[in-house]
Amino acid sequence: MKTSQESMKDIGISLIQKRGVEINDIVEIVYDLQKSYISGLTKATCADAVDRVLGKREVQYAILTGVELDRLAEENKLSEPILSLIKKDNPLYGIDEILALSICNVYGSIGLTNFGYVDKIKPGIIGILDKKGKEEQQCHTFLDDLIGAIAAAAASSVAHNAVL
Amino acid sequence: MKTSQESMKDIGISLIQKRGVEINDIVEIVYDLQKSYISGLTKATCADAVDRVLGKREVQYAILTGVELDRLAEENKLSEPILSLIKKDNPLYGIDEILALSICNVYGSIGLTNFGYVDKIKPGIIGILDKKGKEEQQCHTFLDDLIGAIAAAAASSVAHNAVL
Amino acid sequence: MKTSQESMKDIGISLIQKRGVEINDIVEIVYDLQKSYISGLTKATCADAVDRVLGKREVQYAILTGVELDRLAEENKLSEPILSLIKKDNPLYGIDEILALSICNVYGSIGLTNFGYVDKIKPGIIGILDKKGKEEQQCHTFLDDLIGAIAAAAASSVAHNAVL
Amino acid sequence: MKTSQESMKDIGISLIQKRGVEINDIVEIVYDLQKSYISGLTKATCADAVDRVLGKREVQYAILTGVELDRLAEENKLSEPILSLIKKDNPLYGIDEILALSICNVYGSIGLTNFGYVDKIKPGIIGILDKKGKEEQQCHTFLDDLIGAIAAAAASSVAHNAVL
Repeated sequence: MKTSQESMKDIGISLIQKRGVEINDIVEIVYDLQKSYISGLTKATCADAVDRVLGKREVQYAILTGVELDRLAEENKLSEPILSLIKKDNPLYGIDEILALSICNVYGSIGLTNFGYVDKIKPGIIGILDKKGKEEQQCHTFLDDLIGAIAAAAASSVAHNAVL
Repeated sequence: MKTSQESMKDIGISLIQKRGVEINDIVEIVYDLQKSYISGLTKATCADAVDRVLGKREVQYAILTGVELDRLAEENKLSEPILSLIKKDNPLYGIDEILALSICNVYGSIGLTNFGYVDKIKPGIIGILDKKGKEEQQCHTFLDDLIGAIAAAAASSVAHNAVL
Repeated sequence: MKTSQESMKDIGISLIQKRGVEINDIVEIVYDLQKSYISGLTKATCADAVDRVLGKREVQYAILTGVELDRLAEENKLSEPILSLIKKDNPLYGIDEILALSICNVYGSIGLTNFGYVDKIKPGIIGILDKKGKEEQQCHTFLDDLIGAIAAAAASSVAHNAVL
Repeated sequence: MKTSQESMKDIGISLIQKRGVEINDIVEIVYDLQKSYISGLTKATCADAVDRVLGKREVQYAILTGVELDRLAEENKLSEPILSLIKKDNPLYGIDEILALSICNVYGSIGLTNFGYVDKIKPGIIGILDKKGKEEQQCHTFLDDLIGAIAAAAASSVAHNAVL
């Protein structure tokens, strides 16, 4: 495969956007997660952190894999019973959380707490994806967890840099 | 070592209690986490789940290790710089979350979300431990995460059993 | 979805067999991993452990997801660039190891060591899958890691029970 | 705590050396792990990778915590039953592997395979530590896993860079 790491990052970003998420939606979540801990935090700092996370290979591969499974589920191109498990976002399925965890860990274990919180509270775009995934002909079983994990990892990166 | 698995469970429970946490405090958190998802959920069901989690070897060893580090930090018996890192519950230390994660995973990845939520919201005894750890001559850097993880794993077990 | 946990186990086993792996192939690996540590170990004990691992929900879901991705790659039904990443078993892809890790953790962290060893040494059926995946029109990018992880988790279960 | 990240790295390296491991011992393991995959690999490249791994905060904290527990076990300053569990390197204890896993994950999931392999084969200094830990008044329960994990993470970093 000739795709370089830089273009793999672009592919990942493009995939997320096609599925309805703007990078700025993620930046907003990062900012809200960290603003009460870091005085003077700017959105530009959060945007840099999101960009760093999206530049990591393991993050790109998790995005590619999860979004592909969401798309195939939407188009009914998976076989049963995994089609139903993913389409209905079965709460015990757990593979979406496993992919997300691999993203969270990119900046150490402190990403975990933010991921769990975001996954439960579903702020901003995550709540929108979750709602759309339930109401329409859309499947965002993996995407909402991926976005939450990217935001959580970026929040960790912001926290790490703040004390350097 | 002759200690059997059953007595290791008793040792773990006894350690938690000596550090100020009653099993019922954990049961309350599990109940609050799951009551809105499972109609007719009883506290007895949650207590059974907490008991199952505490019967797992990896949970017992995580408790033994974390509580020992908290105690040694309290008694200033660790060397620097780890003494300060643990005593001040440095948010980037992360080893407490790593031990907690090993507990969360006992019933699959869905424990992660509950752990992250509980770690952020600090309900019931977890908030009390967190406050005491900051105000008094006490160190609960590991304990609050261990308790949150036990509650999160038990909540996962309740959720798994509810659909069986 | 009406599929009960018992039938999900049967579906998982059936999928593995369709992809060329007999349960006994896994039992052999478990036996070889543990025979030097446990005197008098029988293959029946190893078979029981494999059966316990296959009865776990998170294991079943990892099997379903990984085998589906292998099959879709084989049939060129994935989009690029993930199709090439999976078909060529790119060593940096890593999502196969992440699914495998979720299986290893089912009986605690000691499963990790066995998984890493098996993944490197490729004993028995794992070596056969790896070779077939490279030479023929077959894709076993996920399957070989899944089988290695099931064997590693079963070996952990055997080790845990041996000291109870 | 005023210790900056750079000095925390120095503290980690100094701790490892005091416990009998030279950085070059780790470099040798990395080189042996990767030489058959990357033509023209030099030890200088491996040394750079080890240096990068040791510069990561989560790695430093895992070293500090694990070495402290080894030292306290050696000096009989832990309470029972955790003292015996750590002194005798109980194979089911598992907390040493959990700390190691947090290091392996620093460069993605491909570190896992190398860690498991190294932990089983015990090449170079790891075999020496393991032997000393059993024969003498020394405890290396955590250290051998930490060193294996640092080598595994560095090997992953070498592999990632080789394809960039």
